[in-house]
Amino acid sequence: MMRLLVANANTTAAITEACAEAARAAAAPGTEIIAATPRFGPAVISSRAENAIAGHALLELLAEHAGRVDACLLAVSHDTALEAARQMMPCPVVGMTEAACLVGCMAGSRFGLVTFGGVDTYRELVARHGLASRLAGLAGVAATPPEAVADPEGVGAKVLAAVAGLAAQGADSVVLAGAALAGFDRRLQARSPVALLDGMACGVRMAELLVALDLPKPRGGSYAACSGRDSLGLSPALAALLRG
Amino acid sequence: MMRLLVANANTTAAITEACAEAARAAAAPGTEIIAATPRFGPAVISSRAENAIAGHALLELLAEHAGRVDACLLAVSHDTALEAARQMMPCPVVGMTEAACLVGCMAGSRFGLVTFGGVDTYRELVARHGLASRLAGLAGVAATPPEAVADPEGVGAKVLAAVAGLAAQGADSVVLAGAALAGFDRRLQARSPVALLDGMACGVRMAELLVALDLPKPRGGSYAACSGRDSLGLSPALAALLRG
Amino acid sequence: MMRLLVANANTTAAITEACAEAARAAAAPGTEIIAATPRFGPAVISSRAENAIAGHALLELLAEHAGRVDACLLAVSHDTALEAARQMMPCPVVGMTEAACLVGCMAGSRFGLVTFGGVDTYRELVARHGLASRLAGLAGVAATPPEAVADPEGVGAKVLAAVAGLAAQGADSVVLAGAALAGFDRRLQARSPVALLDGMACGVRMAELLVALDLPKPRGGSYAACSGRDSLGLSPALAALLRG
Amino acid sequence: MMRLLVANANTTAAITEACAEAARAAAAPGTEIIAATPRFGPAVISSRAENAIAGHALLELLAEHAGRVDACLLAVSHDTALEAARQMMPCPVVGMTEAACLVGCMAGSRFGLVTFGGVDTYRELVARHGLASRLAGLAGVAATPPEAVADPEGVGAKVLAAVAGLAAQGADSVVLAGAALAGFDRRLQARSPVALLDGMACGVRMAELLVALDLPKPRGGSYAACSGRDSLGLSPALAALLRG
Amino acid sequence: MMRLLVANANTTAAITEACAEAARAAAAPGTEIIAATPRFGPAVISSRAENAIAGHALLELLAEHAGRVDACLLAVSHDTALEAARQMMPCPVVGMTEAACLVGCMAGSRFGLVTFGGVDTYRELVARHGLASRLAGLAGVAATPPEAVADPEGVGAKVLAAVAGLAAQGADSVVLAGAALAGFDRRLQARSPVALLDGMACGVRMAELLVALDLPKPRGGSYAACSGRDSLGLSPALAALLRG
Amino acid sequence: MMRLLVANANTTAAITEACAEAARAAAAPGTEIIAATPRFGPAVISSRAENAIAGHALLELLAEHAGRVDACLLAVSHDTALEAARQMMPCPVVGMTEAACLVGCMAGSRFGLVTFGGVDTYRELVARHGLASRLAGLAGVAATPPEAVADPEGVGAKVLAAVAGLAAQGADSVVLAGAALAGFDRRLQARSPVALLDGMACGVRMAELLVALDLPKPRGGSYAACSGRDSLGLSPALAALLRG
Repeated sequence: MMRLLVANANTTAAITEACAEAARAAAAPGTEIIAATPRFGPAVISSRAENAIAGHALLELLAEHAGRVDACLLAVSHDTALEAARQMMPCPVVGMTEAACLVGCMAGSRFGLVTFGGVDTYRELVARHGLASRLAGLAGVAATPPEAVADPEGVGAKVLAAVAGLAAQGADSVVLAGAALAGFDRRLQARSPVALLDGMACGVRMAELLVALDLPKPRGGSYAACSGRDSLGLSPALAALLRG
Repeated sequence: MMRLLVANANTTAAITEACAEAARAAAAPGTEIIAATPRFGPAVISSRAENAIAGHALLELLAEHAGRVDACLLAVSHDTALEAARQMMPCPVVGMTEAACLVGCMAGSRFGLVTFGGVDTYRELVARHGLASRLAGLAGVAATPPEAVADPEGVGAKVLAAVAGLAAQGADSVVLAGAALAGFDRRLQARSPVALLDGMACGVRMAELLVALDLPKPRGGSYAACSGRDSLGLSPALAALLRG
Repeated sequence: MMRLLVANANTTAAITEACAEAARAAAAPGTEIIAATPRFGPAVISSRAENAIAGHALLELLAEHAGRVDACLLAVSHDTALEAARQMMPCPVVGMTEAACLVGCMAGSRFGLVTFGGVDTYRELVARHGLASRLAGLAGVAATPPEAVADPEGVGAKVLAAVAGLAAQGADSVVLAGAALAGFDRRLQARSPVALLDGMACGVRMAELLVALDLPKPRGGSYAACSGRDSLGLSPALAALLRG
Repeated sequence: MMRLLVANANTTAAITEACAEAARAAAAPGTEIIAATPRFGPAVISSRAENAIAGHALLELLAEHAGRVDACLLAVSHDTALEAARQMMPCPVVGMTEAACLVGCMAGSRFGLVTFGGVDTYRELVARHGLASRLAGLAGVAATPPEAVADPEGVGAKVLAAVAGLAAQGADSVVLAGAALAGFDRRLQARSPVALLDGMACGVRMAELLVALDLPKPRGGSYAACSGRDSLGLSPALAALLRG
Repeated sequence: MMRLLVANANTTAAITEACAEAARAAAAPGTEIIAATPRFGPAVISSRAENAIAGHALLELLAEHAGRVDACLLAVSHDTALEAARQMMPCPVVGMTEAACLVGCMAGSRFGLVTFGGVDTYRELVARHGLASRLAGLAGVAATPPEAVADPEGVGAKVLAAVAGLAAQGADSVVLAGAALAGFDRRLQARSPVALLDGMACGVRMAELLVALDLPKPRGGSYAACSGRDSLGLSPALAALLRG
Repeated sequence: MMRLLVANANTTAAITEACAEAARAAAAPGTEIIAATPRFGPAVISSRAENAIAGHALLELLAEHAGRVDACLLAVSHDTALEAARQMMPCPVVGMTEAACLVGCMAGSRFGLVTFGGVDTYRELVARHGLASRLAGLAGVAATPPEAVADPEGVGAKVLAAVAGLAAQGADSVVLAGAALAGFDRRLQARSPVALLDGMACGVRMAELLVALDLPKPRGGSYAACSGRDSLGLSPALAALLRG
C-alpha cells in the first residue's frame, strides 16, 4: 500500500477535493490518496506574487506529512515550489505539469500546452524544466473557470480549436494546464487529433513510478536534505524539517 | 495483465536474456515480459554504423509483435530508432536511456551519465531528447564488458569515481548507460552520493505508466501511423505495417 | 529625495544592518536607505526550501512598504521572489545578483561568479535571468561566513584564486555572490585582474536608475498588478495588495 | 578523375536516375557520377519508420562501393544515416540537405526551407546539424509529387509564395527539400527574391570540395572506422566493413 | 561633474544635435554632455556595410576624447563597434540599444523591439548581447524618418499598433530603436500598455551608473587595453591608443 | 577562368603574400588568385579595436575590386566584416575561419579550434556563425608568431598537444586559426589523430564552390545591395558602392 499526498497549493478546499477525486480515478489499485489544503495563502493562484506566497504555504503543508507519506504530488499547474519541495522532503515529489510535460516527451517529439488566459508563466515553467526545445507552442483560451462549468461544450470547442492549432504547429500531444481544465482531457480526447495530457493523471502515475524505483535522496549537492538550519516563526513541522 | 516487449537491438541472445531478467525484476506484478532478439545486425552496437543498421533490425522485430503487445521497451542504451518505432507501432514505445534521463529530471535539477568508452554519441542522444540543459556531464569509464564481468569490484570502483566526479559537477543523479553496466546500480548505490539510474528499471516502469495512461496515437503529424506505403524486400510484418 | 527599501530576505537583523550600511555607502547623495527584516523565515538562506519560504516573508515585508518607497532592492544574493515582487509592487524592484550580472554585461563579454559553497543554484539563477551565454563560469570557494570574518586575508586569497581561475576561463568581470562576501570587492579589487562586482553597490545604482527613468508598470500581461484576488491568513498589507 | 557515388535511399530507380541527371548537370568536368539504388527498403521515404529502414539499405549500398569511389552523396533530402555513413566509409560522405544548409550559411544570415507536406522532421534535421539558429523558418507546400509533374506552374506558384513568406521572415536564401522539388530552383529562381538552394547541386560541389581537400579520417573518436565488429545476416560487403 | 561623450556614428550633425538634446534631457544634474560627430562615414546607417564603416569612424572619434571624458554613450541604435570601443577606451562605454535591453530585463521577463523597416540586424544585435531568450519579438513599422517628422500622429499610431502586438506576444516592455523614433516614447507612453524604452535615456543613466561604480578595466583578456600595436594611416589619436 | 580576390585585412604585405601563396597552392587549376592589402589599418589584428578598424579598411579594399573579381576570400582568421562584405559586394564572399568551420561540420559531429594566445574572440566568432553547438572546445597555444618561425618543431609539438586535448574532448577535426599557423596543417597532419583544417585551403575551395553554384544575390532583406546611400570622406570606390 502506497500513500500519496495530493497537496493543493491554494486554499480552496473544493479544488483540493476535485484534485483528490481525479487522483483517485487515475491511481493504481494499491495507491491511497491523501488530499490536503494549505492553512494560508491565495484562494486561487493566478499571478506571480500569489505563486510565491503559495510556495511557503505548500512547504508548510508538505512538512506536516513528512515521513508519513510515500510521495507527494503538487496539485497545482504552476509546479509551485517544486524544486524546494523536492529538496526538503524525504520522499519523491512530483509536479503535475512537470509530469504531463515528461509524458509529452514520450508521446512524440514536441508537445503543446493549453490554458485559460495568459501563457507567459507557463512558457517560463517549461523552460525552467529545461524542455523549451520540446514545446511546439502555447495557447491561451479566452475563457474563465466559471464559464468552463457553465458551458463545458462551448469552452470545450475553444479548447479543441486551440489544440488543433497547436497540432498544426507540430505538437504531437497537448498538456491541459490549470485546475479549470480538469476532466476536459477525457471529454475531448475522442475529438482531438493528438493525445491530451492531464497533469493529475500523469502526476499520480509518475509518483507511483518513483516510489517503485525507490531511489535514494542525494547526500550532497543542492537537493540534499536540510540540516541544522535555524528559522523564526515557522510552523513546528516546517522548522523541524529545516533543523533536520 | 500487460504484455511488454523487451526488444534487444543487437543479435546477442545472452544480452537479450540479461535484459529480460532485469526487466522481470523491475516490473510490476501484472506485467508479462516478452523478450526478443533481432534476426540480423551487429553482435553489439558500438559505432554509428552499427546503430543505424540495428535500427532496421529493431523495427523488423517490433513489427512482428505489433498488435500483440501493449508496449515496447527498446533494450539498447542508444535508444536506437526510438522515434521511428514510436511512429510505426500502435502501442507505446520507450527507450531505456530516454526513460532514465526523464527519471533523472525528477531526481534533481541535472543528471550525469556514465558509460564504458566514448561519450560523444551519448551527448548527442541527450541533446536529441532535448535535455542538454539538464545534463551535468558525461564520463567514460576506461573498462570493457569482459572486465566488468571478471572484476566487478575494480570496475565498480572506477564507476564510483566517475559518479563522484559528476556529482561534484552538479549531477543530482547519474544514468548508467550500456548493457555492461546492468546491475551496477544495485551493487554500487549504497556507496554513491546520488541516485544511480538503470535504464531497464526506469524503462519498464515508464512503459507501464504509458499503458496505464492509455493515450491515443496522433492521427496526424510526423508520429501518425504509416498508410499505403510501398516497399521492397522487407519482412512481411514490416511491409504490412508500412502499408497500414 | 528618493526612498529605497533595502529588504533582507532572512531574519538575521545583523545582516540587514550590514546590507544597509553597504547600501548607504553606494548610494547617490539624494537616496535615503530604509532597511527592513522579515517577520519570519530562515535565519540564513542556504537551501532551496529556505529560499521558497523566504519568498513569502519577503513579499510580506515589501507589502508593508508599498506606496511608501520609490524602489526596492532585494538584499539577498538568490534574488528571492524577484519576479513576484516586481509584479506585486507599484515601484521598481531590483535583485542584487541580477544587478551585478547586468553590470557584468557592460564590463566585457562574459562574467564569472564566486560564492561560498555550492554553485548550482547560482547557475540556475543566471539561467533564470536568461544570461547563461554570458556566464564564463562559477566557482565555489571552500570557506564559511565565520571564516571570512575570522581570517579575511586567508579567505581573500582563496577568493582571488577563484577569480583568477575564472578570468583564465574568459571572465571579464566577476560577481561576488553572498552576504559573506560583502566588502571583499573593495578589499581585493587592486589585486584582481578583472573588476569585482558587488551586488549591493550594483543594486543600489540600478534602483536609482529605474527611479530616474520613471517607467510605468505594465497594464497587462504577467507583471500587471494584482486585482480582486482573495486570500486567507496573510498579513493585512499583503492581502490588501492582492486585492488591489 | 573523381568518382562520386550518388546513392539514393529509396528503391525507386526513376528517382535514382533523376538524381544522377541532376548530379551530372551540377558536377565539375572531372567528376564521374555513379548512381545506385538500394536492394531493399521503402519506395519513397515519407515517415520516420521508412527513414530508419532506409538507413540500413543505404549503408549496405554504400558498403558495396567502399574503396571504389572517392566520395558519396546521399541523394535523399532527409540526410538518412548520414553520420553513420560518414563514420563507416573510408571516403567523404555528404548529405544533400546538409550541403544546401551549409551553402545557405554563406548566402546570408538565415535560410528557410520549403518542402511538400509536413515540416517537422526537417526542423529536427536542421537542429541535428546544429543550425537551428540559422533557420528563419520552414514552409510545407500543399502539393504532391504527382501534382508537381502534372502542374509545374501551379505548384511553382505555391512554392514561390512559400519562398516569399520565408523571405519576409528573414530568410536570405531558401533550401528546396525533397526529390519532387528537383529542378524547381532553376525554374523559379528568376522570380524569387532570394537564392533557391538545390540539394543535389550543393551536394555535388561539397563532395568535390571535400575530395580536393583530401582530409584524413579520424583515427579515434566516434567517426573512426569500424574494426573487429561481428554481425549476423548482413550483406558481405557491409559485414566486411564492420570487421574492418 | 561627470563628462559624458555622446558619440554619433553617422556623419549627420543634425542627428548628433538631436541625440545631445535627448541626452541632456535624460541626464542627472551633474552630468555634462559632450556631443560629437565622426569625420567620415555614412550619412545614416541602414546597412551592414555602412555599419562596419561607421565602426572605424566611431573609434576614431572616441580616440580623440580618450582621457578627457568619464564615459561614452554610443548614440547609434546598432550599438556599432561597441565591444571594440569598450576594449579600446580607458573609460566605460555604453550602447544605447544595449542599455535599453538591459533596462527591459528589469521591467519584466521579456521585452520587444520596434524599429522602422527591417528587423533582422536588430534580432542579431539582441542575440549578440546574449539576450535572445528575453526577446518577445520584433516589429518593423512601415514608415520612414521623414514620415515620422511629417506625420507624427499617423506614424505614432503605427508604432502603438506594433507595441500592442508585441505585448500580446508577451513583451512586458518595448525598446524603440532608431534615431527616427526618438521622442516617441514620451509622446506615446500614456497610450501604451507597457513601458516604452528609449535608448538615449537608458544609455545616459547606464553610463552614469558605470561611472559611479568606478570599476577597473580588465588587465588581461580580450577587453584589456591595446599596447604596442602598430598601424598605418590612422588618425594620430587612434594610432596612439593602439600603441598604448 | 575564375578570379578570386584574396583580401588581407591587415597592412602587412608579407602576410598578404603568404596568404596568396597558400591560396594558389589550394586553388583549382582554373582559379586565378589576386591578392591585395588594405591602404590603412593595423599591422596585425589582435584586439577588438583593431578588428573593427580593419573592417573599414577591408571594405574599402573590396570595393576597389567590385565587378572585377568573381569571389572574395577574406584572408583574416577573425572573418572581419564578413557579413558587411557579403552584403556590399556583388559576388560571393567567404571568411577563412567560416569556411574551415563549415568543413569541420562535414568532417564529424564537432570540431575544435586552436590558435595562438586568447580564445575568447574565436568562441564569439563561432557563436556568431551559429555553430556553437558543433564546437568541442578551443585551445590557446602559448606561442607567438616569431616563435612559430624560429622553432616550428617546438611550436608544432605544442599545437599537437592542443589538438590531442581537443580530440579527447570530442573534436573530430580541428581548425587552425591565425596566419601564424598557416602551413602547420600540412606539417602536422600525419601526427594528428584528427583532420587539421586550414582556413585558406577551405576558403579557396568554398569560394570556388559558390562561384560554381552561381547563386543570385538577395533582392531584399539585410543582404541586398546598397542603393542611394550618402557618405562623407570615403574612398571613391566605396562611396560608389554605397550609392549603388
